[in-house]
Amino acid sequence: MRTLEKATHQQTRAYNSQLVLRTVYDRSTVSRSDIARATGLTRTSVSDLVAELIGSGLVEEVGRGPSTGGKAPILLQVAPRAREVIGVDLDGEAFTGLRVDLRGRVLHAAERSLAGADGRHALGLVLDLLDELTRSSPAPLLGNGIGTPGVIEATTGTVRWAANLDWADLPLGRLVAERYETPVNVGNDSQAAALAEYTFGAAPRPDNLVVVKIGQGIGAGIILGGRLYQGDGFGAGEIGHTTVVEAGEPCRCGGLGCLETVASMRAIVGRARHLAQHHSGSALAVDPASIDEARVVAAFDERDQLATMVVEDAARQLGRALAALVGTLNVRQIRIVGSITRFGDRWLEIVRREVREHALSLIAGDTVVTFGRSGEEIVALGAAALLMTRELGLSLAR
Amino acid sequence: MRTLEKATHQQTRAYNSQLVLRTVYDRSTVSRSDIARATGLTRTSVSDLVAELIGSGLVEEVGRGPSTGGKAPILLQVAPRAREVIGVDLDGEAFTGLRVDLRGRVLHAAERSLAGADGRHALGLVLDLLDELTRSSPAPLLGNGIGTPGVIEATTGTVRWAANLDWADLPLGRLVAERYETPVNVGNDSQAAALAEYTFGAAPRPDNLVVVKIGQGIGAGIILGGRLYQGDGFGAGEIGHTTVVEAGEPCRCGGLGCLETVASMRAIVGRARHLAQHHSGSALAVDPASIDEARVVAAFDERDQLATMVVEDAARQLGRALAALVGTLNVRQIRIVGSITRFGDRWLEIVRREVREHALSLIAGDTVVTFGRSGEEIVALGAAALLMTRELGLSLAR
Repeated sequence: MRTLEKATHQQTRAYNSQLVLRTVYDRSTVSRSDIARATGLTRTSVSDLVAELIGSGLVEEVGRGPSTGGKAPILLQVAPRAREVIGVDLDGEAFTGLRVDLRGRVLHAAERSLAGADGRHALGLVLDLLDELTRSSPAPLLGNGIGTPGVIEATTGTVRWAANLDWADLPLGRLVAERYETPVNVGNDSQAAALAEYTFGAAPRPDNLVVVKIGQGIGAGIILGGRLYQGDGFGAGEIGHTTVVEAGEPCRCGGLGCLETVASMRAIVGRARHLAQHHSGSALAVDPASIDEARVVAAFDERDQLATMVVEDAARQLGRALAALVGTLNVRQIRIVGSITRFGDRWLEIVRREVREHALSLIAGDTVVTFGRSGEEIVALGAAALLMTRELGLSLAR
Repeated sequence: MRTLEKATHQQTRAYNSQLVLRTVYDRSTVSRSDIARATGLTRTSVSDLVAELIGSGLVEEVGRGPSTGGKAPILLQVAPRAREVIGVDLDGEAFTGLRVDLRGRVLHAAERSLAGADGRHALGLVLDLLDELTRSSPAPLLGNGIGTPGVIEATTGTVRWAANLDWADLPLGRLVAERYETPVNVGNDSQAAALAEYTFGAAPRPDNLVVVKIGQGIGAGIILGGRLYQGDGFGAGEIGHTTVVEAGEPCRCGGLGCLETVASMRAIVGRARHLAQHHSGSALAVDPASIDEARVVAAFDERDQLATMVVEDAARQLGRALAALVGTLNVRQIRIVGSITRFGDRWLEIVRREVREHALSLIAGDTVVTFGRSGEEIVALGAAALLMTRELGLSLAR
């Protein structure tokens, strides 16, 4: 059992050092006595650990606080730009990246249009994006966090499979680590999104949270007990490739009738295009070949019959799949992020109804399905947060 | 974050005490120096903690070991009957219970036939069973562990819902605690089964394990990171009540077309009975009203056409539901327990094929679905194990 591993002195020291760093990070400024009170550690231990953190540049002294009788105490803070972190998002039509400080404040943002590129060319764009972000500041870099669709071998940073980029067994983590000589963390984009939503979402944080990201593809990130759960092969949350229609449409993964083929934005746009050719009553019937996400969203908002049918079908399929997830995990907070949220509350209400009707009522009745609260930077921030958690034991928080 | 709670001295002491107890428990006999080496604790700390454990009767001195130069060391062991634990299983046609020592050795077994009883009468049988087990030995009792189908509020031991027993919001934990004045733990039977399978299954133990229990009902127990995952409402693993057939057969839960209505032993027997009336070519057509589990198993083994169709249909539905679970959790080890295992490898092969064909191949290809290795006592032992883990921090292990 994990809880019964050796409680050696070194482990206790490393644990306590992270505890002190976190205590400073969670408050704007704090004295050594405050830390001792908050952690239960002795003054001597706190002084030792703080000295070490000051030595590494992570913590700095910032003057004196108000005296409470004796000598006014020296105040400490985490030096926000002691380290900077890069986070990039490899989903969608463009790669986007951020360089942030230890508070998640954006110092530099960059983007590279994918324009249909995949394979080696897409890899070139990633490196080009990282080059810009790396050069954008002289401050010490903690590392590069990368969020990408697909199944990632997180230990080595190898992308086992990413359909949209035509990558298979690409050693992305190793390539990036060698180029920049700095730590790298490659993670699944939905998993990164879940971590960001958990970190930057409204307080109080739930123990458990599932974030479902729906855009071109569908994936979930699962937070259990306050930590990202990645599964035995780092593929936890790959719900987009569960079969929901027997002998259905072919999927990018090679399967048939996967959830992605009926409930993703890609599926909705594709189906609208297909049906619009035979449905003269719909606004979408004018120039069906040019139907894109924006046109379907607009038609759905105007209660166009064809758009309504296609989008509601997709919502039903998603709701049924989420019911299975809710029945399995009994996680009460489910948040939806990604471009699908453009369909708004009419779409969401159908998803909620299907979840209620397709899982045990005692469990489904306690489940709350909402839109996530994070913005478009969610994956890039989550990727940076994953890197920061791994390297410093800190949860990136503003 | 959980990892950042206060690392106080008391916590360290309690942690180290459990560590010492576990170290003694995991070896047949051990000296104080062995413990110090194995744990990294100082000799002084070990002596203090051992003295405390001897005082509580949990650990005892058992003579001297071989000398390695100096004085022969005193050997310690966990006194197996220092405490005894009761575990009961409230699933099936009869309630069964065990009184075991701290090694899980059965000291006394008892049973009460349910004979269709439910509600208050079923509760009376539980107490009668516990009375017999409580009286069966004068040794100090650590507590009562109860495993029951349904959704349990594990903190209070309240059964929120158990269809087969017609219980709703029954404060079983409180009733039992008051009657016997000893700790009690009420848990879901599939969750208890998972813990027992994890504990008594073959080494090496996987980090993550899902045990699916299929008899009259269907439920799963989920072990993540070596610990039982129960979900926000203790309902994790309630996969039996996810809808798999739209507008399908009515289910005990009030829903329609739940997995239980198509893939459980109850569903198989019911469907065989129904179809046998119109299927004169089958051995089951002789006296359809008397069809039971044993007759269906025998007919399936003899490759009876009707039995084969019914059982294979059920296997397909289960496999598809497990594909969704595998896609969500990416847990590589799935073990099936319960009376369904009587259908053997022909049934299992279909389940495996459906899992492979209905989840992302990269994930499904790594997944191993097998029958569990534990016997009929799995739920009662698991219930005892849950109690023991909660009270002593020990994982019941032989």
